[in-house]
Amino acid sequence: MIDKIDFEKNNGLIPVIVQEDETNEVLMMAYMNKESLQMTLDTKIATYYSRSRNSLWVKGETSGHYQHVLKMYLDCDYDTILMVVKQDGVACHTGEKSCFFNKLL
Amino acid sequence: MIDKIDFEKNNGLIPVIVQEDETNEVLMMAYMNKESLQMTLDTKIATYYSRSRNSLWVKGETSGHYQHVLKMYLDCDYDTILMVVKQDGVACHTGEKSCFFNKLL
Repeated sequence: MIDKIDFEKNNGLIPVIVQEDETNEVLMMAYMNKESLQMTLDTKIATYYSRSRNSLWVKGETSGHYQHVLKMYLDCDYDTILMVVKQDGVACHTGEKSCFFNKLL
Repeated sequence: MIDKIDFEKNNGLIPVIVQEDETNEVLMMAYMNKESLQMTLDTKIATYYSRSRNSLWVKGETSGHYQHVLKMYLDCDYDTILMVVKQDGVACHTGEKSCFFNKLL
C-alpha cells in the first residue's frame, strides 16, 4: 500500500491529518516523508518530517507529548493520510489540545 | 483572520481538512486558493481549487453532493484549515462516504 503513495507529487512529503481516537477531534496536520512514515509504522509513535527544520521529528521527543498511533488510512488517490492516535498531553505547541483553535467561521 | 494566511507558502493554496458535523468523521482533504476560500465564506458551500484541473471547483456541482459549511478553523500557524460540514450524499468520488477507506495500519 505504501508503494502507491506518490511522494514526489509534493516535494517528497505527504500530509497527515491527526485525529484523536476517543473523541474523533482533529488535533493537527503535519507532513511525513517516506522514512518518517516507515518509522511511524514500525514504532507506532508518530514521526514527521519538519519542513522548517528539514529533519525527522519524533513528536513529543522534547515535550513528552507523544502520539501513540492506533490506525492509519490512505485516501482514494493515495496522497493524504488520516492517522488516529492516543495523544499524551496536548497536540499543539501553544498548549491548546488541538491546533485548530482560531475560528474563521 | 484571512489576511494571516500565507498562501504563498504552498503555491497559493491552503490545505483544508473536511469533517462531518454530526459524526466528527474526517471525509476528505482538498485545497483552497484565496478566491475559493472567500467564495466558501460568502456562500457557505464548499468551494475548492482543483490542482488537476487548475480551476475553481464547487464541490457537488456535477454530483449534487454539496458540502454545507457550518464552521471553519485556522490552525496555530495559519497554514491549514479545518472545515466542519453537512455533507449531501457522499464525499468521495468513488461512492464511499469518506475518502479515507484504504487501511494502512
